[in-house]
Amino acid sequence: MTITAEETTWAAAPHDTEGWLGRAHEVASILRKDALDRDRAGGAPYEEVKLLKDSGLVTLLGPAEFGGGGQQWETAYRVVREVARADGSIGQLLGYHYLWAWAVRLVGTEPQICAVEELYTRNNFLFGGAVNPRDSDLTIVDRGGTLVYNGVKSFSTGGRATDLTVLEGIIDGTSTHVFAIVPTAQEGIVFRGDWDNLGQRLTDSGAVEINDVEVDWSGAAGFVDKVFRPLVYNTLNFPALEIVFANFYLGIAQGALETAAEYTRTRTRPWPYGGDNKETATDEWYLREGYGDLQAKLWTVEALVDQVDAEANVILHEACENLTEQRRGELAIRIAAAKVLAAEVALEIGNKIFELTGARSTSNSVGLDIFWRNARTHTLHDPLPYKRREVGGYVLTGELPEPTWYT
Amino acid sequence: MTITAEETTWAAAPHDTEGWLGRAHEVASILRKDALDRDRAGGAPYEEVKLLKDSGLVTLLGPAEFGGGGQQWETAYRVVREVARADGSIGQLLGYHYLWAWAVRLVGTEPQICAVEELYTRNNFLFGGAVNPRDSDLTIVDRGGTLVYNGVKSFSTGGRATDLTVLEGIIDGTSTHVFAIVPTAQEGIVFRGDWDNLGQRLTDSGAVEINDVEVDWSGAAGFVDKVFRPLVYNTLNFPALEIVFANFYLGIAQGALETAAEYTRTRTRPWPYGGDNKETATDEWYLREGYGDLQAKLWTVEALVDQVDAEANVILHEACENLTEQRRGELAIRIAAAKVLAAEVALEIGNKIFELTGARSTSNSVGLDIFWRNARTHTLHDPLPYKRREVGGYVLTGELPEPTWYT
Amino acid sequence: MTITAEETTWAAAPHDTEGWLGRAHEVASILRKDALDRDRAGGAPYEEVKLLKDSGLVTLLGPAEFGGGGQQWETAYRVVREVARADGSIGQLLGYHYLWAWAVRLVGTEPQICAVEELYTRNNFLFGGAVNPRDSDLTIVDRGGTLVYNGVKSFSTGGRATDLTVLEGIIDGTSTHVFAIVPTAQEGIVFRGDWDNLGQRLTDSGAVEINDVEVDWSGAAGFVDKVFRPLVYNTLNFPALEIVFANFYLGIAQGALETAAEYTRTRTRPWPYGGDNKETATDEWYLREGYGDLQAKLWTVEALVDQVDAEANVILHEACENLTEQRRGELAIRIAAAKVLAAEVALEIGNKIFELTGARSTSNSVGLDIFWRNARTHTLHDPLPYKRREVGGYVLTGELPEPTWYT
Amino acid sequence: MTITAEETTWAAAPHDTEGWLGRAHEVASILRKDALDRDRAGGAPYEEVKLLKDSGLVTLLGPAEFGGGGQQWETAYRVVREVARADGSIGQLLGYHYLWAWAVRLVGTEPQICAVEELYTRNNFLFGGAVNPRDSDLTIVDRGGTLVYNGVKSFSTGGRATDLTVLEGIIDGTSTHVFAIVPTAQEGIVFRGDWDNLGQRLTDSGAVEINDVEVDWSGAAGFVDKVFRPLVYNTLNFPALEIVFANFYLGIAQGALETAAEYTRTRTRPWPYGGDNKETATDEWYLREGYGDLQAKLWTVEALVDQVDAEANVILHEACENLTEQRRGELAIRIAAAKVLAAEVALEIGNKIFELTGARSTSNSVGLDIFWRNARTHTLHDPLPYKRREVGGYVLTGELPEPTWYT
Repeated sequence: MTITAEETTWAAAPHDTEGWLGRAHEVASILRKDALDRDRAGGAPYEEVKLLKDSGLVTLLGPAEFGGGGQQWETAYRVVREVARADGSIGQLLGYHYLWAWAVRLVGTEPQICAVEELYTRNNFLFGGAVNPRDSDLTIVDRGGTLVYNGVKSFSTGGRATDLTVLEGIIDGTSTHVFAIVPTAQEGIVFRGDWDNLGQRLTDSGAVEINDVEVDWSGAAGFVDKVFRPLVYNTLNFPALEIVFANFYLGIAQGALETAAEYTRTRTRPWPYGGDNKETATDEWYLREGYGDLQAKLWTVEALVDQVDAEANVILHEACENLTEQRRGELAIRIAAAKVLAAEVALEIGNKIFELTGARSTSNSVGLDIFWRNARTHTLHDPLPYKRREVGGYVLTGELPEPTWYT
Repeated sequence: MTITAEETTWAAAPHDTEGWLGRAHEVASILRKDALDRDRAGGAPYEEVKLLKDSGLVTLLGPAEFGGGGQQWETAYRVVREVARADGSIGQLLGYHYLWAWAVRLVGTEPQICAVEELYTRNNFLFGGAVNPRDSDLTIVDRGGTLVYNGVKSFSTGGRATDLTVLEGIIDGTSTHVFAIVPTAQEGIVFRGDWDNLGQRLTDSGAVEINDVEVDWSGAAGFVDKVFRPLVYNTLNFPALEIVFANFYLGIAQGALETAAEYTRTRTRPWPYGGDNKETATDEWYLREGYGDLQAKLWTVEALVDQVDAEANVILHEACENLTEQRRGELAIRIAAAKVLAAEVALEIGNKIFELTGARSTSNSVGLDIFWRNARTHTLHDPLPYKRREVGGYVLTGELPEPTWYT
Repeated sequence: MTITAEETTWAAAPHDTEGWLGRAHEVASILRKDALDRDRAGGAPYEEVKLLKDSGLVTLLGPAEFGGGGQQWETAYRVVREVARADGSIGQLLGYHYLWAWAVRLVGTEPQICAVEELYTRNNFLFGGAVNPRDSDLTIVDRGGTLVYNGVKSFSTGGRATDLTVLEGIIDGTSTHVFAIVPTAQEGIVFRGDWDNLGQRLTDSGAVEINDVEVDWSGAAGFVDKVFRPLVYNTLNFPALEIVFANFYLGIAQGALETAAEYTRTRTRPWPYGGDNKETATDEWYLREGYGDLQAKLWTVEALVDQVDAEANVILHEACENLTEQRRGELAIRIAAAKVLAAEVALEIGNKIFELTGARSTSNSVGLDIFWRNARTHTLHDPLPYKRREVGGYVLTGELPEPTWYT
Repeated sequence: MTITAEETTWAAAPHDTEGWLGRAHEVASILRKDALDRDRAGGAPYEEVKLLKDSGLVTLLGPAEFGGGGQQWETAYRVVREVARADGSIGQLLGYHYLWAWAVRLVGTEPQICAVEELYTRNNFLFGGAVNPRDSDLTIVDRGGTLVYNGVKSFSTGGRATDLTVLEGIIDGTSTHVFAIVPTAQEGIVFRGDWDNLGQRLTDSGAVEINDVEVDWSGAAGFVDKVFRPLVYNTLNFPALEIVFANFYLGIAQGALETAAEYTRTRTRPWPYGGDNKETATDEWYLREGYGDLQAKLWTVEALVDQVDAEANVILHEACENLTEQRRGELAIRIAAAKVLAAEVALEIGNKIFELTGARSTSNSVGLDIFWRNARTHTLHDPLPYKRREVGGYVLTGELPEPTWYT
């Protein structure tokens, strides 16, 4: 891994969006160099997380008073996109981290928000999550003052490389879900390190065993006197995560197209058979049209994601009392659309670039498949047809998606 | 035609973008009522042009000092889109008018700009164009002080319903193109009224005979002492027109999807065979997914066109000296991409809506084909593959499209 | 209408498939000449039916003993396809006729089969159908020896130009459907002549009023002593009709591509802008690739329809006792797949040919939209997603579609 | 590798197509068991070749008089398809072998044909090829009685696991290509074993060094007295190979869809969010529709490939004098179409199956990506747009592709 070899001395934290994008660009440049080798090696992304921390990206959204960047989500989305352009796994890792770090704002009480933000910002901590509400796989026993979590989560993004883990479980004998943030490094949390999947291989998203992990009731996100405060704002979790997905899908797609174009420019040979032959591949009609088609589609999806990023940014940064069910629902619909299109364009580009680079680009020394593998893997998070269905339901009847863990 | 029956009393001209969009919306509401009947009847759009004039839309871009709206292009694009949502033909007509009215700024000299803008704004004049540089079909004889145009143009959008006509021809024995603006109502200009095409049927885009139409050399756009001043700014004509296309394609697509959704909501019956049956069509899975798919795509293209509208707006409203070939070229590339995508989404929606409304929607009493017909007809203006090729050439080599009448 | 002007003297009826295809080709050549004018004029296809009769095509499937062609379905499918290539409406008309003429074999008793086949073959009669089981719109009163039909059918293909009409209704107070064949020309059958739809305009598929139309119980198809004999064979009606659809969709697609190619060859001009210019349109890379893409897809669907035609032919011509539910179901699945693909290719070609012919091809003097209009109209007969769903259900679980009027 | 563990006792060679397909099915069943493990291990396919030999498939096309199967190409195509269904690499290997074994019939003289067929059939020899005419990388020196080959071929399918190697080079100082068949196992042939690509990983298609490999002039395929006999038949090489491609692409596509369907049936969970929930994944509307869509497309392409297989079979098995340029060209066009469609369907299915199996199917323990990897890799053999262009050129102008090494 060459990341460790880098001895980048980072300048002071940037002060504005442009500065942070520049910083993200620097990080991406480092990640890009050996993204393919690291992807193939797999394992936990310790070095990569160190890079994210050293560069300041981890605390981008953290309050300035605690030493954080004090930036808004629009910047965070762009940073995630930029990082994913070089390394889809690390883009995902960073995006999930931002969401988990923010989740306390969506669900927690004022004191919880303050405590969590100070904790992670001052310490430059990375979040990971053992959250997968589809499977009720963690049970909680209420011991009076504390909650005790037990069980196994099949997927926990970030895994061993994180400092804090978001737990989610159901109190035994009830249907009450409780989220809590706990230190990752404790005996009761055992990562199996079994994430061996097609793509996004450096997210360490394997299973985790939770054995008697205790949480004080004061850490039960959003609970006051053991009762949950149901706010519309609480329901933003999934849309807020889903627009993060759209951004790193877009980054993957951009990385794919740029990498392919560079290959075509420098290595693809023109086709000598069939008439109308050209001196260079970049003069081939079908390659120009092919790149034009993909670039036009990519710009289009970028434009939508930019718009929806801005829409999400408004809602995530205004007072939570302002959020109505209607606004929540309409944002969710727009985010669903953006996610579907970003997924589709990443898959299309990840697949088509081979046709624009030629037979030799399938050599594993090129590794052009990393983009398709990354996009293919994460875009299955939840079925795209269900997202289209939500959008269409809204178009036809004005119906808003019922807030669940996946809508 | 019910348009004449309307006795709308128009409020004073709006002062801001929102106001103008509201005005466009009012105009669209009137046009929508009998768009299908008027489309089928064909002929010259006299009533429609009166509506555009009465509502103030014709002088939206005209300088305020001459009584115009003094708005910028971003507003004009949205107005064109809104009008096209109800009536693709009239959206095109208005868009072409804006472009011809602005063309003097792109090509003309300072005194010409001033004269033309005062003329059309004070008089609420509509422009049409007998410009089709692909065919060198108008020849010009230089009679010393005047230029005399002769020939036949196959297509002249706006035709009989316009007040001013943009002529374009080549000086006999040279390769010098000269543009000029002349009054439409003169003996030497004879419209054949032969526009009988599949769609955009109210644009009166038929052939026009030009017989000894005289133009003073002072009216030869951009000529000083019979010599043309070649500025980068002159080369914006086609991109500036092409982004207008993208906007009315988008309007057509929006109109199609909205009309279809209203039909599905109110008239489509659920399908009773095959299991999993629903009580209403709006509950049908495949209809929800279908509308969601089209709406998501439409939002995506809208977002790109919005972005590119803004990019074009900057360049069209800043000092023309600022325009470099690089910036011109990059704008042309972005516009090309936006146009291709807008064309594709309009065609896809215009075709697919039938599958989302059902067999009875093919009745001519419904007339749902107007959207496909309109999109199908105008999107052939110049071949989409050539546009994709330009975009791809830029992606691969940074090559900018050589400015021609179509790039 | 020039059809009447033709004084074709038809040779004796052909003896083999090749002969009949030649005959169909001759008929198609006549129909092609003014297909567009006749389409626009609309109305009942009297002349066209006369042509089908004179040429012998109407009795192609009729038993040789009664003077019919004695051919099998595979020939009939190809004949329908060939006719639809020139005139989609008449292809549909002929295809429906073959199916209605055969329906008595699927549903009727031995004596009914014999009687009906003799009747229509000897008299060269054309069938039409007032069958649309989705709406229970004809009621039947059992008067003891006779059944009396009353009501209105929204769609009745063939309408005024037919000799025999297939009625379908439900006996009052029961859920018993009864099919019967009656002479079209009777007082109780009144066609409204209100078929004014986007495409397939010459099928006269408008509404029909049925007023006290009497049928002897002996004519109640498949009933013996007023009790229906439920055979697997009875359930072939819809699949047998649906493969007819696939064949005329294919004919429409072929006609579209051929007509477009002829236009491109003779009238499309090469595009002069953007480099890499050619002397003729037929040398344009994007036109060659475009035609290649469509032709390859068309050949592919033709191959599937050929295969499924053969599969249907076996089952329709063997002893009905041989038909199991499994074989019926598997045939229905294959037919569903063939129909979906034929519909899709016809729509794609009908839409794309404009991009391969250029802007001037939208002139109504060319009328290239007839193919899209025809395909668009009939392919909505029943929703394609439901057909794909049947195929997928079979792939996943081996489940066969439950025989209904539409599966 | 478990292949070696199999102690299959093969029955006597089959006598008819059905028998051979059964044999291919048995071979496929063995290959399927560990196809994924073998793919990942890579290396030369020694065990797999042994299996092909033991089962008799290698000599399927060999003359019966020498102990071969005496079958025709239609059977060979189906066998290749069946094997590829289980293992794309081995399908390719076998298909290339059949083509190289047959190439002597296309290019060689009578005595050469006889000698080669006896040699490989009696000895159960497998062919591989160091043929890649795009790069003129082997030079030949004419030493009077012998030809001496030298150089490096970048790709040589089959490599170390073959018995015979087809060489192709250019005689020094001329433009004369000479093909010859030589024993693979000789000092002058050194395989680099460097085939490490995305897919088709067991074809050992790496580079080969040719050092002073001598061939007697009598072995120069098609040369008589050092002069080449130019027959139309000689030009069938590429089409005959290309239809082999179509068949193994189809096999890969079939294998992908079957494997995915089995996964969905047994492991995919229904989606619990968003309403309309089902008890099993196989009841999910979008999964049924998704499988139906892919199966319908696959059947369609199968039908075309079946048709074109039959067309190729006729030409490959009739007297070579019968072959005209027209027939050769039309066959090449049909094969080009079949290849394009087979490539597209394999890619689409290889990519989409993930959406029909769900997120957990990206686990490397499932390895569902093997199908996309295999299809993605080989379908780049030569650019699909050039194939579409050939088909379109034929449609538009009747132009036949000029016979080259790739058309």
